[in-house]
Amino acid sequence: MQTQILERMESEVRTYSRSFPVVFTEAKGARLTDEEGRQYIDFLAGAGTLNYGHNHPKLKQALIDYMAGDGIIHGLDMWTRAKREYLEALEELILKPRGLNYKVHLPGPTGTNAVEAAIRLARVATGRHNIVTFTNGFHGVTMGALATTGNRKFREATGGIPTQGASFMPFDGYLGEHADTLDYLEKLLGDNSSGLDIPAAVIVETVQGEGGINPAGIEWLQRLEKICHAHQILLIVDDIQAGCGRTGKFFSFEHAGITPDIVTNSKSLSGLGLPFAHVLMRPELDKWKPGQYNGTFRGFNLAFTTATAAMRHFWSDDTFERDVQRKGRIVEERFQQLAEWLTAQGIPASERGRGLMRGLDVGSGEHADKITAEAFAQGLIIETSGHDGQVVKCLCPLTISDEDLLEGLDILDASTKKVFG
Amino acid sequence: MQTQILERMESEVRTYSRSFPVVFTEAKGARLTDEEGRQYIDFLAGAGTLNYGHNHPKLKQALIDYMAGDGIIHGLDMWTRAKREYLEALEELILKPRGLNYKVHLPGPTGTNAVEAAIRLARVATGRHNIVTFTNGFHGVTMGALATTGNRKFREATGGIPTQGASFMPFDGYLGEHADTLDYLEKLLGDNSSGLDIPAAVIVETVQGEGGINPAGIEWLQRLEKICHAHQILLIVDDIQAGCGRTGKFFSFEHAGITPDIVTNSKSLSGLGLPFAHVLMRPELDKWKPGQYNGTFRGFNLAFTTATAAMRHFWSDDTFERDVQRKGRIVEERFQQLAEWLTAQGIPASERGRGLMRGLDVGSGEHADKITAEAFAQGLIIETSGHDGQVVKCLCPLTISDEDLLEGLDILDASTKKVFG
Amino acid sequence: MQTQILERMESEVRTYSRSFPVVFTEAKGARLTDEEGRQYIDFLAGAGTLNYGHNHPKLKQALIDYMAGDGIIHGLDMWTRAKREYLEALEELILKPRGLNYKVHLPGPTGTNAVEAAIRLARVATGRHNIVTFTNGFHGVTMGALATTGNRKFREATGGIPTQGASFMPFDGYLGEHADTLDYLEKLLGDNSSGLDIPAAVIVETVQGEGGINPAGIEWLQRLEKICHAHQILLIVDDIQAGCGRTGKFFSFEHAGITPDIVTNSKSLSGLGLPFAHVLMRPELDKWKPGQYNGTFRGFNLAFTTATAAMRHFWSDDTFERDVQRKGRIVEERFQQLAEWLTAQGIPASERGRGLMRGLDVGSGEHADKITAEAFAQGLIIETSGHDGQVVKCLCPLTISDEDLLEGLDILDASTKKVFG
Amino acid sequence: MQTQILERMESEVRTYSRSFPVVFTEAKGARLTDEEGRQYIDFLAGAGTLNYGHNHPKLKQALIDYMAGDGIIHGLDMWTRAKREYLEALEELILKPRGLNYKVHLPGPTGTNAVEAAIRLARVATGRHNIVTFTNGFHGVTMGALATTGNRKFREATGGIPTQGASFMPFDGYLGEHADTLDYLEKLLGDNSSGLDIPAAVIVETVQGEGGINPAGIEWLQRLEKICHAHQILLIVDDIQAGCGRTGKFFSFEHAGITPDIVTNSKSLSGLGLPFAHVLMRPELDKWKPGQYNGTFRGFNLAFTTATAAMRHFWSDDTFERDVQRKGRIVEERFQQLAEWLTAQGIPASERGRGLMRGLDVGSGEHADKITAEAFAQGLIIETSGHDGQVVKCLCPLTISDEDLLEGLDILDASTKKVFG
Repeated sequence: MQTQILERMESEVRTYSRSFPVVFTEAKGARLTDEEGRQYIDFLAGAGTLNYGHNHPKLKQALIDYMAGDGIIHGLDMWTRAKREYLEALEELILKPRGLNYKVHLPGPTGTNAVEAAIRLARVATGRHNIVTFTNGFHGVTMGALATTGNRKFREATGGIPTQGASFMPFDGYLGEHADTLDYLEKLLGDNSSGLDIPAAVIVETVQGEGGINPAGIEWLQRLEKICHAHQILLIVDDIQAGCGRTGKFFSFEHAGITPDIVTNSKSLSGLGLPFAHVLMRPELDKWKPGQYNGTFRGFNLAFTTATAAMRHFWSDDTFERDVQRKGRIVEERFQQLAEWLTAQGIPASERGRGLMRGLDVGSGEHADKITAEAFAQGLIIETSGHDGQVVKCLCPLTISDEDLLEGLDILDASTKKVFG
Repeated sequence: MQTQILERMESEVRTYSRSFPVVFTEAKGARLTDEEGRQYIDFLAGAGTLNYGHNHPKLKQALIDYMAGDGIIHGLDMWTRAKREYLEALEELILKPRGLNYKVHLPGPTGTNAVEAAIRLARVATGRHNIVTFTNGFHGVTMGALATTGNRKFREATGGIPTQGASFMPFDGYLGEHADTLDYLEKLLGDNSSGLDIPAAVIVETVQGEGGINPAGIEWLQRLEKICHAHQILLIVDDIQAGCGRTGKFFSFEHAGITPDIVTNSKSLSGLGLPFAHVLMRPELDKWKPGQYNGTFRGFNLAFTTATAAMRHFWSDDTFERDVQRKGRIVEERFQQLAEWLTAQGIPASERGRGLMRGLDVGSGEHADKITAEAFAQGLIIETSGHDGQVVKCLCPLTISDEDLLEGLDILDASTKKVFG
Repeated sequence: MQTQILERMESEVRTYSRSFPVVFTEAKGARLTDEEGRQYIDFLAGAGTLNYGHNHPKLKQALIDYMAGDGIIHGLDMWTRAKREYLEALEELILKPRGLNYKVHLPGPTGTNAVEAAIRLARVATGRHNIVTFTNGFHGVTMGALATTGNRKFREATGGIPTQGASFMPFDGYLGEHADTLDYLEKLLGDNSSGLDIPAAVIVETVQGEGGINPAGIEWLQRLEKICHAHQILLIVDDIQAGCGRTGKFFSFEHAGITPDIVTNSKSLSGLGLPFAHVLMRPELDKWKPGQYNGTFRGFNLAFTTATAAMRHFWSDDTFERDVQRKGRIVEERFQQLAEWLTAQGIPASERGRGLMRGLDVGSGEHADKITAEAFAQGLIIETSGHDGQVVKCLCPLTISDEDLLEGLDILDASTKKVFG
Repeated sequence: MQTQILERMESEVRTYSRSFPVVFTEAKGARLTDEEGRQYIDFLAGAGTLNYGHNHPKLKQALIDYMAGDGIIHGLDMWTRAKREYLEALEELILKPRGLNYKVHLPGPTGTNAVEAAIRLARVATGRHNIVTFTNGFHGVTMGALATTGNRKFREATGGIPTQGASFMPFDGYLGEHADTLDYLEKLLGDNSSGLDIPAAVIVETVQGEGGINPAGIEWLQRLEKICHAHQILLIVDDIQAGCGRTGKFFSFEHAGITPDIVTNSKSLSGLGLPFAHVLMRPELDKWKPGQYNGTFRGFNLAFTTATAAMRHFWSDDTFERDVQRKGRIVEERFQQLAEWLTAQGIPASERGRGLMRGLDVGSGEHADKITAEAFAQGLIIETSGHDGQVVKCLCPLTISDEDLLEGLDILDASTKKVFG
């Protein structure tokens, strides 16, 4: 494989090509193929961008059909038929059945852009500037979003500009099993000298992805919503990684029965891996004036088209949801077994997650890296997350066949046992 | 045309659908078609994103071929064949022939993301935090980029978070014909009490797009480069709107014979209107550590594919460049005539621009809006720019046929004369 | 009493004249006299500025003698005999006997100035920007210091400029009796995704004054010092209110046997109530370049003179310390009795403090205000503190006679019982 | 002279003791005496703090009398007779005769504190955050004030926290003799894409002190006031160095007949060199809520006492003003002669100033330092200012006798001629 020009010309910032130093060429469903024809099972899936797998035939066909008719590809924020169909499907298939009433902001096609728009809107709508965010949260790296992202790797690379406008609170479970971390938030809110500026909004992932597959408890989320209501603080659920079915529901917050004021989606929203994002907001929060937030790619019609196809194909009834939940239980069980085996070998390990967003915590990044490196050697692409990279993270396509799923799990099992047996 | 759901569900932030309140369905070359079958000549071209027109057959074919083979669509920053081919074409067709030696950062697919990455890199590389930017500059609206964007509409919509880390200087011509605005910059740099923190970088558009089609003078740009060198300040050319051939050269700074330390491209980079951006940097500036800047869509392989096709089709020799320059002169001449006519009617007007990035300054946004509204009624899509929206802005596809170009210009002429005759 | 011009011309920002709406004329020791000749016992003592009482004869004489000889009053940071004598006394009587080796920065005569200088030095010396501060901490209101001050009253009055560069942590006891709040700090420091930027310094009051007379535990302070050492974080003790003998030692941190890297003193430092402040720092931290921090009143020689007299008179041996501790026990006992009495009346109350910095927590600001208002009516000046103003705060002069002390305590006792009996 | 402990214990930040490395002991009027009995004429006068000279007998007597009666020294912001007398004198002798109607904020005794309070009030009162300040302006070094101070020495010593909330504009004369720099400000204000956030206030020194004795033109100041009115921007005159008679009027802005919305005074306000400052504001701007801005030393009664004495002694009629103006003309003439002589020697020099705030610009800090060093050797204390320290700055006491004034000028003359003759 020719990698010389890639190594020479691409910035040192590159990462995945360090863990998986091959040149990929094709992909289908849950399988990637490299230039030498070797196949890999994909438990990474674009870090949650390919919930429906690579090149899903229905979505691909929708895209090709659209292009065949010379449909508008790029249209800024002009009205197009593709956009209208997207909004119709979103309302009919996603929002209405869930009793949700949101307006839609299309701020640009990346997650960080959606987060910037969401927190800015919260500030404009409330007149307050502070945003409460959580330990191990990840919400993007442009300067506005970075303020809410916990990872020092990014925070220390701003070149001397401190972020501003956010306060970190302990996420659910952060202070141990028996502490309800919302006690701390509530105490600070109620204390006029706590140093916590009353926030415009709380931004939260219901399951932290980059932070180590940390699912917030259902009751914790419900209490968080109550606290927000009590203090007129907006609740933003950043559903960029956990949304679009990853946890077994379209929106990850459905499990808790809560209704965020603002929601961000991106990653798997287009269905086919195209850049796309939106912000959903309660209609009365839509305080934007025309043109106050813009971006060249805020109307990417190919993404409207595939997103509409994805909604129509997967979200017309609950078949897909139930299948994701079923597969989630398979992964859960296998991860549980692996955790027990590891613990028995003297490596305390544990399993956690929700739906098909699952992690195997092996205690240290060093351990986890050994496992994922061996897995790659055996044909499985899987990455780590968490503050020390200590969590092996399964984000396989939701559409993965049982066969591929089990093969991937078998590789992970074999790799772990080879490394630590 | 059904617009009810669009009006109901999309945020009030929408803009272009206010000026052009129709639903578009198809597009080809320089022409858009709405749902009722009406055609429009497109002098907006995605605000500079569609330099090669809508659905260019060569680029479209490259995309469809790639998809037919189940090529990787989304690959984070993994190595793919599509990425390698993109880098090869960039080096062979763009950089080498121009004597440029840059490394490439793929920071996410939007212009604002590229700007955030560029200015952050400049800060990391120099250890300084300030960025000099210019009056009427536009570099994006995420918080880091917004600090360098002059427009109050965006700056006042942050909800109480002041931007930080940038100082505005007068752009070329800002202080009148006879003042060299770089005298001011140089004086401030040389004065230890001027209040100007010695900057990490200067960021500049060689022709300001949103700011009103303001071309910086060739000598001004050359002097700016010299000042930067003298003070060890990095020079960033934001070529997101003016790059990719718009001014008659691939990079807009080629006209001045300068070599920026860092360059940002986006908009027309993918060729087909797909979200895509890169940052080019002198190799010794590549101070990024692995993973210090990330983003889910930083490896959008469909965009690699169409960008490669665009480079191979349009930039293998200078035929395209020369054709753009030829058409630029046509627009220049017609705008010049219109300006003279308007001036004769008592509406002082003038023409300016470089290549096919041209503006007709009619003195006020009110005047300009009347012209563009009438033009739309007559079948021409054209927008305004400038701090008061006073500049009618021609960004037609570079590939526009002479026929379409002249028809568009005729409509503009007729509209102007209808309104002010 | 003529108060019309005071009410008309002084800004609405005034506070103490609202609680004590009389015009004071004279003062001596622990007693204030108003314009109608009424005397008040002073348990406020300039909020800790008058540790040696009003117009202490020795200090006053030193001042008058100095002025009689036409000594330099204002000298910027020029060398004067008064400054030299101040440094000599500081070294001989305060630093050496306590085994401390500090250099002295005279940054301007106010506490907030000292805090600004201290945290700026910590940033310059470490190359990091963040400062860890604590819930209910108060360190001043100029913008740099305000970032470390918890009180919303001040934080919300910046007119839309968010403070930056500080992170709040729970102070000792903030999470209940059984939680060691430093566990949280240590967890965040050790977690690369916690959102806590590794700080340049921790700034702490060993007994929070404005925050409600909250003494940090001895072991907590010792652990805090250890954590700072382990992470190369500087430890700043802000001893502006608790220093100069208030807790029964010259420096409040002596009780814990810790050695801060940087110390701020002000308030009672001049002894006679004159504006004065200094920053003490470990010599190797003195990274200032000449003139990098300035201020017109950074060499107020009258304050040098009275401060020297105060050190020589009160701190040549431990007599004074022991007397303060003795009186502290008297107040402690009386507050304990009052707390028990209140609790028995159904108003849960408690006592806390260190030395003669003591608080009676009566549960709410409303309760506390009733007590202090009645006390004022009976001739005692005493104020409240805490996030809700729920703590009646005794900061009587350390030099108070037993007679005055007991009379003041009797008034407080009688007032409390009148209000709640 | 014993200087060892001073060199060892005082921070490296010290400056004046480097230029004048002697230990001063006494001072009277315009003369300082060092420990070896040597006398110096003082053309520095506490950088404008000692307008009435050292130890003026009337002010000193007022202070001693007040102390003899055990007057309140420190009273937080409680009402005292001394404060009332201060307000009465301020209204009767200063404000009313000048047709001014201001409320008074006593924010703490330093200039930087007054500036922080003034700009914060402007933000609170207008709801905008930006402050326009000028090249070479100096307004203090605490973080809020530092944002408006141009000097890099201070700006670069914040340890990685960029200042925020201020925009620098060119001061009068900054762009050469023939440019009106307010054209630039006005253009930026009127341009919606200029990058200048509409400011809450403009802060200006009518004669820049630290910046190099730069007097703003009378018409420039008048136009600045008009621009502020036209845009509802508050005008803050920072009269800390130029006020209290320095320019030949009590307020320096009286020369221009303008009425600032907010005024800051400090330095010579107490008259005797005691720390003291106030903010004056139009009554309708007093948006402070009780206690929103505080500070321990915001009621320093000795300063009230001496300030009252100073107002009564010097400002009851215009005798003093006229005398200052007369002496100003003497200095002006002598500086003019020196400038001509230097220019004739090939060292282009010039004179500028207003009243007794006068500068001799000798082109470089190197030249100026040689002159002031020689002057010190000959018994004259005089410092430099300006961005390169290129201006020899005369701030002699306004009360200086003609004899001392002429002797000082003779020394300066002799020193200059010795160095450059």
